[in-house]
Amino acid sequence: MSPRTPEVLNETNRVEAFSDGVFAIAITLLILEIKVPHEIEPGALRAAVLHLWPSFLAFATSFFTIGVMWMNHHRLFTLIGTTDQRLLVLNGLLLFGISFVPFPTAFLAEYIRHPDGWIPAVIYNTTFLFMAIWFNLLWRHASKNRRLIEDDVEDESLAAITKQYRFGPVMYVIFLVAASFHPILTMLAHLAAAIFFAVPPRWFTNRSA
Amino acid sequence: MSPRTPEVLNETNRVEAFSDGVFAIAITLLILEIKVPHEIEPGALRAAVLHLWPSFLAFATSFFTIGVMWMNHHRLFTLIGTTDQRLLVLNGLLLFGISFVPFPTAFLAEYIRHPDGWIPAVIYNTTFLFMAIWFNLLWRHASKNRRLIEDDVEDESLAAITKQYRFGPVMYVIFLVAASFHPILTMLAHLAAAIFFAVPPRWFTNRSA
Amino acid sequence: MSPRTPEVLNETNRVEAFSDGVFAIAITLLILEIKVPHEIEPGALRAAVLHLWPSFLAFATSFFTIGVMWMNHHRLFTLIGTTDQRLLVLNGLLLFGISFVPFPTAFLAEYIRHPDGWIPAVIYNTTFLFMAIWFNLLWRHASKNRRLIEDDVEDESLAAITKQYRFGPVMYVIFLVAASFHPILTMLAHLAAAIFFAVPPRWFTNRSA
Amino acid sequence: MSPRTPEVLNETNRVEAFSDGVFAIAITLLILEIKVPHEIEPGALRAAVLHLWPSFLAFATSFFTIGVMWMNHHRLFTLIGTTDQRLLVLNGLLLFGISFVPFPTAFLAEYIRHPDGWIPAVIYNTTFLFMAIWFNLLWRHASKNRRLIEDDVEDESLAAITKQYRFGPVMYVIFLVAASFHPILTMLAHLAAAIFFAVPPRWFTNRSA
Repeated sequence: MSPRTPEVLNETNRVEAFSDGVFAIAITLLILEIKVPHEIEPGALRAAVLHLWPSFLAFATSFFTIGVMWMNHHRLFTLIGTTDQRLLVLNGLLLFGISFVPFPTAFLAEYIRHPDGWIPAVIYNTTFLFMAIWFNLLWRHASKNRRLIEDDVEDESLAAITKQYRFGPVMYVIFLVAASFHPILTMLAHLAAAIFFAVPPRWFTNRSA
Repeated sequence: MSPRTPEVLNETNRVEAFSDGVFAIAITLLILEIKVPHEIEPGALRAAVLHLWPSFLAFATSFFTIGVMWMNHHRLFTLIGTTDQRLLVLNGLLLFGISFVPFPTAFLAEYIRHPDGWIPAVIYNTTFLFMAIWFNLLWRHASKNRRLIEDDVEDESLAAITKQYRFGPVMYVIFLVAASFHPILTMLAHLAAAIFFAVPPRWFTNRSA
Repeated sequence: MSPRTPEVLNETNRVEAFSDGVFAIAITLLILEIKVPHEIEPGALRAAVLHLWPSFLAFATSFFTIGVMWMNHHRLFTLIGTTDQRLLVLNGLLLFGISFVPFPTAFLAEYIRHPDGWIPAVIYNTTFLFMAIWFNLLWRHASKNRRLIEDDVEDESLAAITKQYRFGPVMYVIFLVAASFHPILTMLAHLAAAIFFAVPPRWFTNRSA
Repeated sequence: MSPRTPEVLNETNRVEAFSDGVFAIAITLLILEIKVPHEIEPGALRAAVLHLWPSFLAFATSFFTIGVMWMNHHRLFTLIGTTDQRLLVLNGLLLFGISFVPFPTAFLAEYIRHPDGWIPAVIYNTTFLFMAIWFNLLWRHASKNRRLIEDDVEDESLAAITKQYRFGPVMYVIFLVAASFHPILTMLAHLAAAIFFAVPPRWFTNRSA
């Protein structure tokens, strides 16, 4: 894409900066979907706040899920040293999903106790399913034959990530099926998955060597 | 603008960072314009969501159009090595257009089936027409006599971009005329243009040398 | 503030990044204050859009005024090489003003034809008056005895900026007085000032040496 | 986390950039919670604006409290040179609190004169209490045995910060108790604390050596 070799090696900087921006904005916009209750009678405010629990739960779930995705994005791009057009497009599709998240989050929170609650649940799960797919394709494209990988990265690191990422879409398909039955369960499952990914076993040991 | 020669050479860093911020925020704010439907009767939620299709289509169209513009902005600024006052002003006009996009996007989505739908369509097209013009002027100003171009960029690269950019405004004028007849057609045309720019032929071959 | 000398010299990086973020977000949030007109009868949409002109004018005015302030901020921080606590506080007060701008902008647009329109006009002008004061104090603190200035900056550059900045608060006081009489005039004056600062004479000559 | 030693040393860059983004967005979104009063009769606008004082006070309080937290975050990360998984998680919990702030801010402003005003006050105080705790754990984890600290940082600097940070949670517990009695007092206490942290004694002397 660029004819200038010396620049190419750290060309990922601006892609990372732009992606960081989208991640940071999407994760911070989530709070705008929790509306302050209006014109509540004296004595009824506590009930009104407690009534917002699905919004708080959805906020936390989406925050930590996007947060874990940012950590993974961050990790991949410490290994990726070059960009090409296809990487930009796949990254763009991933960011499309990230920027979309506030809608299904608010939608799920509002209809969590509604008989049609499975509809926002399916939209919520599908959104993350697509992101898991883009993540896989992005990594596959970058890592195949070490196409965009920095020279000093070891092959074992690549294989480990490839293996770990194969798991994502399968997990989201399971969530997608579960969503048809129980919206709250879906939300808890996403939250649990985020915590699982964020807090690996070594948390309890002391630090990786 | 600055008397300090050593700094001048990478002075574009902060302009790029600021521009990245505006691009990233505008692209992520788009989702706020899609409102969750309120107080829907049991059994009617699926219809209510499907009814939102113009909002989803407008969201996708503006997301990918801004995304492609970011990619172009990114590409130009890997070639531009210095800034001057006029570049800052032209870049400011471009960002003015980018930050304006959420309004015509929401406006077009809301009136897509309305008899007066041509009005938001014209505003939408005019917004992007102006941005295409600022992009051209920005590039022309930077590239003329290699005014702000880094030394190691080849003349052929400059000529190729100049040629490619001449095409933009013409395309948007065509869209502008088409918009008078059919709003949805306009949206699809913008979406197609974004895909066309994002996915060049080499996607299907394997990778540019 | 930090005991580590080598780090101190480029310590302004993160202050600039954070400031860029606030500038970029405030400038992009402005559009959220322009509301798409709802439920307009066929044939009445053109009038409804034209009725929004104060919002469009206020959007443009605040966008370019913040944009010019960003350019000035950018220019100052290419000369400032070190931060201290007081610089951070003054910068914080400046960003407080920047982040506040969307409110007086929307307020002025909504009441531009209202008999009490002088109230939002005074708030709008006061907001920018305070920012001009913080800008002056920030520059005075940084430049006095070259306290936080990089070594390779010439004294003449500092004197020129000091002289130019003395003008700002005076101008805003004039606006503040004018605002008591005519809100639209105030908005046009701010817009004219932004254009005046953005497009200096050399625009018509070719480029500064 | 990464097998590549040379990269590890400045790996905090992207964590800082992402955190800066969340801080900058949360601090700038606060203004969206102050709503322009609608359809005010001639002569009644001044009263309507003055009626908004709790929103202005809450805006200022949260702005400067987040601003001081950003300064502390900035200061810690000039000392921290490496990241690990646990640091990312603790930083994520801190950002979770920061991104949540716009809700309790708007909530407190709306119910400041309401008999149930102690409820938003408790939520407001609890939010900042949790952030103070994450801040402490983050610093404890990074500084213990100089785990993630850069080599050229002196032990005295670490001890001083550790001592200073021990104070935070205690202060917020006091606020939490005070909040049960008087919401406005709580807001003023937070504002005073932010000013206290931002303007240290040396402001009145001239500059730290």
